[in-house]
Amino acid sequence: MRILGIDPGIAIVGFGFIDKAGSKVTPVQYGCIQTEAHTPDEERLLHVYEAMLQLIDKYKPDSVAFEKLFFNRNVTTAMSVSQARGVLILAATQRGLPIAEYTPMQVKQAVVGYGKAEKKQVQEMVRMFLRLQAVPKPDDVADALAVAICHAHSYTLNSRINEVLRK
Amino acid sequence: MRILGIDPGIAIVGFGFIDKAGSKVTPVQYGCIQTEAHTPDEERLLHVYEAMLQLIDKYKPDSVAFEKLFFNRNVTTAMSVSQARGVLILAATQRGLPIAEYTPMQVKQAVVGYGKAEKKQVQEMVRMFLRLQAVPKPDDVADALAVAICHAHSYTLNSRINEVLRK
Repeated sequence: MRILGIDPGIAIVGFGFIDKAGSKVTPVQYGCIQTEAHTPDEERLLHVYEAMLQLIDKYKPDSVAFEKLFFNRNVTTAMSVSQARGVLILAATQRGLPIAEYTPMQVKQAVVGYGKAEKKQVQEMVRMFLRLQAVPKPDDVADALAVAICHAHSYTLNSRINEVLRK
Repeated sequence: MRILGIDPGIAIVGFGFIDKAGSKVTPVQYGCIQTEAHTPDEERLLHVYEAMLQLIDKYKPDSVAFEKLFFNRNVTTAMSVSQARGVLILAATQRGLPIAEYTPMQVKQAVVGYGKAEKKQVQEMVRMFLRLQAVPKPDDVADALAVAICHAHSYTLNSRINEVLRK
């Protein structure tokens, strides 16, 4: 099963495709979509949308996982990121992909085993799980891979629960 | 010139197409796109996007005007509405339409002549400008028409300024 993890944004969208076989996860492709500062929002949204469709069509994931956004302070940033999130969700839905969402706490719990883990710990665990030489940069890429790994774990857990229930 | 005014939302998207000839504005079509409660966000976003593309293709506006969102309290609502706003901006941009944005104060100033006008005053002026028998319902439709009228006025003003500057 191939999972696409996405960390949405209007300047940088982190993405990570991973393959899951049993309890093993393997990186397929990861990176980020970047948009130019000082260009109108509508152009940036169109670029994010088109680039994501291209990635989905090239790497053909089976499902997509997003981190749920939490904003306490900057509502303007929250609205800007949410607009990008909207077009990313649209791209995935137009390709018929099921969408999962996880809170930052769920991602940390799944990746580090501790819901209040520090960012560095999450990044280091992402590196280890995927057997990478270095932590992927920028942070948005590591975050996207983290939510993909979280989804892989949840999926395994749900499958096991269903197996037990079926017996 | 045909203008499409949009009041974005995830449950209800208000829209209003108006024609502007000189200083006169005429209603072409107005109403709202509604999505079903208790359906996943991704389905609602897809519906909003597809319905808006159909409206644009049917009524062929020359430009689109959105009200700028302001949220002080509920960030969750702000993020949900912004996701819808993202796919609506995308639809307009994919059809090559220029996008304008106005703050609620700019809309009130343009429609009523007073930036702190009450909602009811705005609605009554929308009714009068468009020579309608009654205020369009729900409020989202009247709001969409108000931002379209605001854009029509700004356009006239900008044209006049350009004329004067050219002389």
